[in-house]
Amino acid sequence: MSGKKLNIGLFGFGCVGFGLYEVLQKTPGLKADIKKICVKDRLKKREIGSENFTFDPSDIFNDPEINVVVELIDDADAAFEIVSKALKSGKAVVSANKKMIAEHFTELLELQREYKVPLLYEAACCASMPIIRNLEEYYDNDLLDSIEGIVNGSTNYILTKTFKENLSYEAALKEAQEKGFAESNPILDTGGFDAKYKLLILLAHSFGYIAQPADLFNIGIDKIGKLELKYAKEKDLKIKLVAKAFKNADGDISAFVLPKFVAAEDRLYNVDDVFNGVVTKTSFADEQFFVGKGAGAHPTASAVLSDISALGYDYKYEYKKISQQQADSRQQIDGKPLTLSDDVTLKVLLRHEAADAENLKKYFISIDESYLNHESGYITGTISLQQLREVEGGNLKQSFVLL
Amino acid sequence: MSGKKLNIGLFGFGCVGFGLYEVLQKTPGLKADIKKICVKDRLKKREIGSENFTFDPSDIFNDPEINVVVELIDDADAAFEIVSKALKSGKAVVSANKKMIAEHFTELLELQREYKVPLLYEAACCASMPIIRNLEEYYDNDLLDSIEGIVNGSTNYILTKTFKENLSYEAALKEAQEKGFAESNPILDTGGFDAKYKLLILLAHSFGYIAQPADLFNIGIDKIGKLELKYAKEKDLKIKLVAKAFKNADGDISAFVLPKFVAAEDRLYNVDDVFNGVVTKTSFADEQFFVGKGAGAHPTASAVLSDISALGYDYKYEYKKISQQQADSRQQIDGKPLTLSDDVTLKVLLRHEAADAENLKKYFISIDESYLNHESGYITGTISLQQLREVEGGNLKQSFVLL
Repeated sequence: MSGKKLNIGLFGFGCVGFGLYEVLQKTPGLKADIKKICVKDRLKKREIGSENFTFDPSDIFNDPEINVVVELIDDADAAFEIVSKALKSGKAVVSANKKMIAEHFTELLELQREYKVPLLYEAACCASMPIIRNLEEYYDNDLLDSIEGIVNGSTNYILTKTFKENLSYEAALKEAQEKGFAESNPILDTGGFDAKYKLLILLAHSFGYIAQPADLFNIGIDKIGKLELKYAKEKDLKIKLVAKAFKNADGDISAFVLPKFVAAEDRLYNVDDVFNGVVTKTSFADEQFFVGKGAGAHPTASAVLSDISALGYDYKYEYKKISQQQADSRQQIDGKPLTLSDDVTLKVLLRHEAADAENLKKYFISIDESYLNHESGYITGTISLQQLREVEGGNLKQSFVLL
Repeated sequence: MSGKKLNIGLFGFGCVGFGLYEVLQKTPGLKADIKKICVKDRLKKREIGSENFTFDPSDIFNDPEINVVVELIDDADAAFEIVSKALKSGKAVVSANKKMIAEHFTELLELQREYKVPLLYEAACCASMPIIRNLEEYYDNDLLDSIEGIVNGSTNYILTKTFKENLSYEAALKEAQEKGFAESNPILDTGGFDAKYKLLILLAHSFGYIAQPADLFNIGIDKIGKLELKYAKEKDLKIKLVAKAFKNADGDISAFVLPKFVAAEDRLYNVDDVFNGVVTKTSFADEQFFVGKGAGAHPTASAVLSDISALGYDYKYEYKKISQQQADSRQQIDGKPLTLSDDVTLKVLLRHEAADAENLKKYFISIDESYLNHESGYITGTISLQQLREVEGGNLKQSFVLL
């Protein structure tokens, strides 16, 4: 649709939807207009006139003039229905819904191929930060060793509060909720699920590996207690929720979402508040680091805008690394397809209840320190990701933080 | 040339040229081969067989199979001759020569338009960091307020040495030269000229303004003395050489290269050694920060590789902001074309010889502190960029550092 005018059908008019509307008003250079906005709630008062809205999705799907569907609703299932219907109608799609994209990655890939229309979703991963585009375009031939980042703005806001103002996790979460940075049911963020969806998207664009959400292990920040905060303070560390994927020694890929003690020398140490930060390590370019706002109406709308603009010159994700993986595995290059492996060792601090101490020690490959009082204790040492998953699944009360 | 094989004619086989050769060997996924390498020195021993080389440029220009010319030589004048000849022969070009690009920006733009072939030069600006591509693609519609960065690897290496190891400027420079991070005649780097060429390129891609090198004011790090280093140490600051361009209050653009005292809260504080870092501020995405290696054979080759790969899918810079500027000024939008203005105020520390104290004070709009002993003194205060240029051009012995 090079040079052609972009007529947008927008689904959802929350924070980001309205942000996009505002941002489009201020960029007259971009030949894109919102033609119709489909919303659900008939009673909600809107910031702009009612003539812009419809309650019937088919007003968008059946309008031949609308060539771009922008999906900005919360509900991942409804979003998938909208996005797949739009692709099947031959309309290009921009979405910011990480849960939906992570849960339907393969289907969305196939829909794009079958109907020859692009789906772009830069805003789904670290909001304003152009990480997917850079992985797609810029590192398409460099050999990636690892990608590690703070990819969730609300947990980073909470963690920054606990650190800077000495708040407990609960108090910081409450403040984040009051300020609108965390949902009333915050478990998607605080449990590390949102970060996991983003990790899944990053894995596909950086290593060409398509995981299922259940394949990827995530611990959030909701179990972080006073002991870990004190440990961090004493050692001048910060706790950050990191998502990481890397090529391990066997040439497989390992990936997880875990809280991590981060030292001042670490690039991620100064990524605070709602900022996100991603460090890539590659064979040729060595280390690269990107920082940008990971939440907020305008930063997210800015990424959506950038995707809309890219559609104007027929941009689409090439998914080169996925094609490469599929070709390699067909041709049996390297002998085997790329696999996701939990067979890696991690240095962690494990805080536990006193009664579980002896049982938990068995899971460690080696122990550096252990401490115990009448109620609780902690162990620092080396454990495999496999064993860590097993402990975490065992319904004991404990918390893990990467060292 | 979508999907077509890329046959490369390479000019220059120094550090980066050989780096590119190595990097290409390791990326079999990219359909690109170096067909011929043109070098000057007939006697120099090369790392690869002599059948790869030619001493006659026309072996590359006249070879119809060669569709990409990669220019990696030092001499800016010879580089311009090669690049313009290649473009006129209808060959796409990748170059890493910032001096050449900065000095001939308009001509190179016209050559690209006239002969309908692209010139890419990501490696010319911050080596491995994909800053041009991001400015071109990602921020094409966001409204940029400012761009500020450490864009020269060798001066940053020198400054990091003076800070971490308490070396004098001279000792740090000597060490950098011994390690190959600085040229034997280092004035292009240490005088801030290299940073200025990069600033000129950034200005074009971020604001659509094409400057001449002489338009942009640069002070390097070569005059930094013990007093400034001591001032920084005492106040927990680092000195960094920054290039900055920003929209000023009048809607004009101001730009300069200056040493700057940087506090720990500043994103640039932890950009050390040969790393480069760039902070952009935009209306919608707010603050973004990119860090990557700004020097070295493989990081630079990685950016060249990325440009070569982009040619494979017919990528070219759109120079949208330049076109927008030109259209605006023809249509008299905003009443006047975008101009570069020195009419902005800066907070600086000025170190000077004792005898110049009274004379120099007159240039300041306001003075916060002044110190004087029998040999020398310093003034901190507010000065306009215009006046700063005047003082600097006056052949007095002084040094400026931004506060």
